[in-house]
Order: sequence, then structure tokens, then C-alpha cells
Amino acid sequence: MEKVQPRILPGFMELLPEDQIAFNKMYDTIRRVYEKFGFLPIDTPVIELSDVLLAKAGGETEKQIYRFMKGDNDLALRFDLTVPLARYVSQHFGELTFPFKRYQMAKVYRGERPQKGRFREFYQCDIDVIGAEELDLIYDAEIPAVIYNVFKELDFGRFTIRMNNRKVLNGFFKALGYGGNIADILRIIDKLEKIGEENVKSELTELGVSAEAIEKILAFISIKGSNDEMLQALKANGVDDELYLSGVDELSQVVGFLRGFGVPDENFTLDLTIARGLDYYTGTVFETQLNDFPSMGSVCSGGRYDNLTEYYTTKKLPGIGISIGLTRLFYQLKEVGVIKSETGSLVKCLVVPMGREYMGKALEAARVLREADVPVDVYYQDKGMKPKMKYANKLGIPFVAIIGEEEAAADSVMLKNMAEGSQEMVKISEISYLIK
Amino acid sequence: MEKVQPRILPGFMELLPEDQIAFNKMYDTIRRVYEKFGFLPIDTPVIELSDVLLAKAGGETEKQIYRFMKGDNDLALRFDLTVPLARYVSQHFGELTFPFKRYQMAKVYRGERPQKGRFREFYQCDIDVIGAEELDLIYDAEIPAVIYNVFKELDFGRFTIRMNNRKVLNGFFKALGYGGNIADILRIIDKLEKIGEENVKSELTELGVSAEAIEKILAFISIKGSNDEMLQALKANGVDDELYLSGVDELSQVVGFLRGFGVPDENFTLDLTIARGLDYYTGTVFETQLNDFPSMGSVCSGGRYDNLTEYYTTKKLPGIGISIGLTRLFYQLKEVGVIKSETGSLVKCLVVPMGREYMGKALEAARVLREADVPVDVYYQDKGMKPKMKYANKLGIPFVAIIGEEEAAADSVMLKNMAEGSQEMVKISEISYLIK
Repeated sequence: MEKVQPRILPGFMELLPEDQIAFNKMYDTIRRVYEKFGFLPIDTPVIELSDVLLAKAGGETEKQIYRFMKGDNDLALRFDLTVPLARYVSQHFGELTFPFKRYQMAKVYRGERPQKGRFREFYQCDIDVIGAEELDLIYDAEIPAVIYNVFKELDFGRFTIRMNNRKVLNGFFKALGYGGNIADILRIIDKLEKIGEENVKSELTELGVSAEAIEKILAFISIKGSNDEMLQALKANGVDDELYLSGVDELSQVVGFLRGFGVPDENFTLDLTIARGLDYYTGTVFETQLNDFPSMGSVCSGGRYDNLTEYYTTKKLPGIGISIGLTRLFYQLKEVGVIKSETGSLVKCLVVPMGREYMGKALEAARVLREADVPVDVYYQDKGMKPKMKYANKLGIPFVAIIGEEEAAADSVMLKNMAEGSQEMVKISEISYLIK
Repeated sequence: MEKVQPRILPGFMELLPEDQIAFNKMYDTIRRVYEKFGFLPIDTPVIELSDVLLAKAGGETEKQIYRFMKGDNDLALRFDLTVPLARYVSQHFGELTFPFKRYQMAKVYRGERPQKGRFREFYQCDIDVIGAEELDLIYDAEIPAVIYNVFKELDFGRFTIRMNNRKVLNGFFKALGYGGNIADILRIIDKLEKIGEENVKSELTELGVSAEAIEKILAFISIKGSNDEMLQALKANGVDDELYLSGVDELSQVVGFLRGFGVPDENFTLDLTIARGLDYYTGTVFETQLNDFPSMGSVCSGGRYDNLTEYYTTKKLPGIGISIGLTRLFYQLKEVGVIKSETGSLVKCLVVPMGREYMGKALEAARVLREADVPVDVYYQDKGMKPKMKYANKLGIPFVAIIGEEEAAADSVMLKNMAEGSQEMVKISEISYLIK
């Protein structure tokens, strides 16, 4: 028979079990923290109706969509979890309790050109809080507090949640007379480190920004210091714009709340250069940086939006949310060696009968261990000792329980500690204590 | 702005959080048991290349596929987890340890016409063991032993794993001289209960089966009794065919092993009418029935196959596997009331500050509880007591910790037990003991 070459489409991450175990550990940690803060699970379809999914989309996003017909239905694969959330909340509004705190950790699809570290299928791990008509500012601190707990538990080293407020930015530029150019100005400022101050100045001049305004802009974004010093400077810098001042007040409150959540100041900082999606966020915005890996960029971003569901309902549903791009984060941390493959197995003990006649005892030992919640495997293939030990070694199983004539007669196993190379005769009923 | 009606495609199951929590509990239970038996996680892409995914498919399956072009790529969504497993094992053969035990619990896609209880997107929860060249018969007992443990933990009442062996069927019909008609004969026999013995006889006659053979067939499928009685009858019924006898021997051994795995005889039974996919399975086959809900049909099926990967590689990779159709099972058990919605929250305690000034204490209480691994939520909206208690009630949160002036001064909360209606003043540091 002609064979088909087994392969997958480029841009899809498929892991060997030892890496999948490491990936799942991250996934489970994030999920556990999300649940501990009261976020509820939802699971929306991967396939949505195109007119619903693309009610807002346009431009770049639309080009990347996996979209196709099936029968008469114009369908598309979700490209994020935010649009499905908006659809879900609008559709099930009457059945939900508000503020509605939901998490969803699932795959999304973007038909980008594949390149190193960019994926066409990837997990997003999202939390959002949606209010009916209103949503307290304290959620702007709860969201980063959750993220602080996630990254603390993931334990990948030092990290900083960088915060800004869109009202501060919008108010500042409006007061300066450039409210209509914010997107362009921010895009230029974003290149400051890369192209230097002089080039930024000339690009801003080209855009039509006055020399005086340029100085003010550069002074503004160079406000640095501790969170309290920055808040002080923002309050004192003489911008008399209502939006600006309300943004500064929000930032100030959020900083206070974050301390109340037990987030240390070293893990969050104000950063006036952060803007995020300009047509979407309206208040607090976040990015998260792993301090030892600045080149990874933001590994977790989000912010406050005024109206999640405007394409589906006239109800006003403000919210705040954040997303971890898990697939990319895993890939990057693996590349730099922070994430190591787990051992190839979840099993703590491999039970090995010396011959077929000890299978009954082997099954008994396995059963006793599983009843004590120890994941256990039995090597059933009727082979010599060598392939049995090789199986344990290749999978990195820490204990092997061998059962031969003497052991079976004594309701015992010869328990080998694979790391230490030691072994001892142990009663079947006592294996689980030794392993735990 | 024109609003788009928020809706999903028919045939997709989307749950409210209280049902999603119940669904996830089932998912987590199945996963935990799979892992306890040493099965390793893999996570293959939802989108595969059509030539790879459809190397074998044809007929009905192919018609149901979600298949589409993206650029020059002919793509398709997976319709099961078995073909991706075959592709995965062939592709990563050199990097895997055999016998390779894997689980995958994920969504698959079939563009069927939607009807009650049939889904276009549904979870399959698969385990398979793949051997390189050979695979011991004892895995034919381990697989149903895992399923026994799954359904015991799921706790949906009495269930029976029904077993047969394709060699017994094939050998029997071959010896009878109807080896070429097995599929047709089995299809007719399958209708026995529905159309009665006389109609079965006449349909078999129409097919060209002799009267003598018909009697033998009906006698064969009417072999009933305990597992040991049935094995005895199969051995003694005079069929002298090598394949048949080796099948009976396998069944007999598997029954013995299953007892070794601690599976009680009441939970498994031989059933000579079970055949499963005729072009695929070659040995032991399984179906699983919930005894109180026979009309649900098999909720978990699978079996032994000789060659998983023949479309991708010349290597011989025999295996055995089984699959739980989780979405359908959940839906059906919900319909009959066996599965109830969980309370609307995973949270054990809602912390409620009486006013803004007690927010600091509320955050502290929440932090202390989370550190003790208690999932907790704080009601932040600055509202009266009524909406706060309504939030707790609607979500079914069992404890509410109220903090006002007196409580804050005493580092305490007023802890309300919502089910009992009782309340008491409790130190923040002691809440978690009371809740647990």
C-alpha cells in the first residue's frame, strides 16, 4: 500500500509526552489560581458563525481567519476568546450572575504565515469580569492580583506587571491638542529605545507635532521612579484635563488596592508608554514582563473596556480582562531552558513481575498503590529484565517494584529507588508510604 | 449600530457555568483515572492536512468532515482521536517508549445533520496502548479495568462492560461456511430484539444462509449465563476452528486478568452479539452499558486492532483502545436527571465588606483563605446588603463572611452558613478551618 507521510501543518505545536506533561502542569496551575479567585469556567465552540464572529473584525484579523462553508453555513474558527465571550454574555445574559467572572483556557486559530515562535493554533488563558451597566474599579486591581498569583506559582523568576491608564494618555494628548493623533504619536514613541530620541523628535515633527508639544511629550513619558513617586509626578505636572485627572486618580486607587491584595511593589510598576489596543481599551491597561527575558515582550496583557458586547446588544456591559498566550509562553521558556521536559511519565512506580506466574501479585500491588492515589504502571510484556528496566529508565519512573518467587511468597516487592540505585524488600501494603 | 443576533450553530453544546462545572468534574475524574494507570497526555492539532487525516476514511465519514482550503493547503478538522494517534505514533515513532500508553481528551468535529443528542463538536476521552510489533494480551484486560475504575468514580449507578472477541465471531462463521457474510449476518442478528426470531430467520434465509446454519447461529448467540458458564459453553460447542478456539482462549484469559485487576464479575459480561467496526477490530471488543439506561446504548466502546498505522508506515503497531463520548454521555445523563447542575460557583466563601472602608480587611480575609487553598470571591460592588446576598444565593456559595466595623476591629468576620442560616463571629485566621 502507498504510504502517506505522517506530518502536520507548520505553525502547530505538537509535543512529546514529556513536554506535554510540563505544558499541562502550567495549564493546571493557571486554572487552579483562576478558580481560587472565583472565576467560572465556560467552553464555547471552536467553530462559530462567521457573521457573529466577524461582527467587529476587519483588516489584519479578518485575513487570518480560518473561514469556510459547510452546506449553507458560513463558518469560522475563533481567533480569540474575547469575541466568543461577548457573544456568550449577550446570548445568555438573563441566565448569568453579574459581575460575571469567567475563565476560558482553550485553543484559538490564526492562519498567519508560520515563523519561529508564532503559532496558528495556540492556547489563550483568559479571565474577564463583566459588569451589568457598571463594574467597580477594584476589579482593575483584582485582575493583576490574579496574574501576580499565577506567575508566582508558575515560578519562572522575577516578573513585573506594567500598568497604565488610557484616560491618562487620552487626557494628556487631548490637553496638548493632539487628541486625534494619539495612535500615531504612540507608535512613534514606542520606537524610542530602538531609534533614539532625535529620530523620534523628527518623526513627531513630520507628523505635525509642535516643538513645544514634543518636549512635553518626552518629559511625560520619561516620568520614572517608584509607583508613589510617579503618581506624585503625574498629579503635579500641571495637566488640567478632567479625563487625565480621573485616569491619574484611578491609577492611584488601583495601586492602593493592589497593595491590599498583597501584591508587592516590586511586581507592579506604572509605565506611561503602555497603550494596548487603541480602539478597545478605555481605562487601566496591563502588560507583564519576565524581568530576565525582556525580549519576550509582554507574556500577559489586557485591560479595562467600556462595552464588550456592542455588536450584539444594546445593554452596556463594561469589563476588564487579561490573557496569557500559553503556547507561545511555553515555547519561549522552553527555548531559553527555563522550562525543562518533565520525566516521560506521570507514574511514580512501575510494578514488574519476574514472570507470568507473578502477574496476580503484580496486579494486586498496582491496585493497592492506586487505592492510595499513587499513579502506577505494570510492565506486562513477557520479556527479560533488561527491557523492563529500560522502559522504567526511558520514562524516568522513580521507583520499580519487582516481584519474584520470594517476594510473592512474602506479599512483598523488591522496591528499587532508581535515582539512588538502592533497593529493599517492602510489604505491598507499605509501598505507598515509602514512595510518598 | 445594527446588532448581530448572538447565536451558535445548531449541534454545538454550550453550557452555563453551573453545568460546565459539572462537565469539568466528569472530565477531571476521567483524566485522573487515566493518569493513575500510567497513560500519558498528548495534544494533537484540531486541524490536520486532509491527505493525512483522510488517508483511510471514505463513505459516511468523509461526507461529515469539515474540510476547507486555506491558501494552498487542503485542511480538515479531526473527526476522531484515533487517526491523529496513528499519525502521531508514526511520525514520532523513534521518540516514544513502547508499549506507548496515551490518553487524549479533546474535541472532535463531525458535520452531521443536527438532531437531539447528536453533536457536531464533542469531546472524546480516549486511551490506547500501542505496542511495537507485539502487545501482550493482558492490556485487553487493563483497558476495561481502567474503564471500570472510571465509571466507579463517576458514580452514575450500575454499569456493565460487555465483551466479545472478533476471533470467536470470525472463526464461528468461517467454520459455518459463511465467513464472507459476517457483516450482513451480524446486522440482521442485531435486530433480534426488535423484529423477533421469525423475522431474523427469514432475513437470514433471504441472505442465503441454510436452515441448519441458522439454527446454529441462533443457538450460538443465545449462549447466556455467568462468564464462566459461557466460556464453558463456548469451549464445548464443538466448533473446531483454530481462530475460534484462539478467540475463546483469549476471552478466557482476559476474564481471568480482569479478576486480577479487581473488577467484580457483576461489572463485566461476555456478549456474543458485540462486533464493533468490522474492518478495524481484530480481537477483544468492548461496549459499556449503564444498566439503568439501556436505551443510551454503549457509552464507552473500543477494542483490539492489529495495525493502527498501516496508512503511514510499514511498521507493525498493534494496539487496544477505548473511547468515552463525553459530550453525549453528559447530555444524556443530564436529560435523565442523573447529572444535576452544580452550584453556580466553585467558590466556598464570599467575603462581603459592609462598606468601602472595610475593603482592606476584606482583601486580607480573602488572601488568608486563598493561602489555605480555599477558593474565595469578594463582592466589590459598592451596594447595599441585598444585592450582595443575592449574588451569593444565585451562585450557591455556601459561606458568606461579612465584615463591618465590629468585625474589622476584632480581625474577624461574621460567618454565615447559607444552608443552615446560622452565623457566628470568627477570627479571620480561623475561617478556613470552619469552612473545610
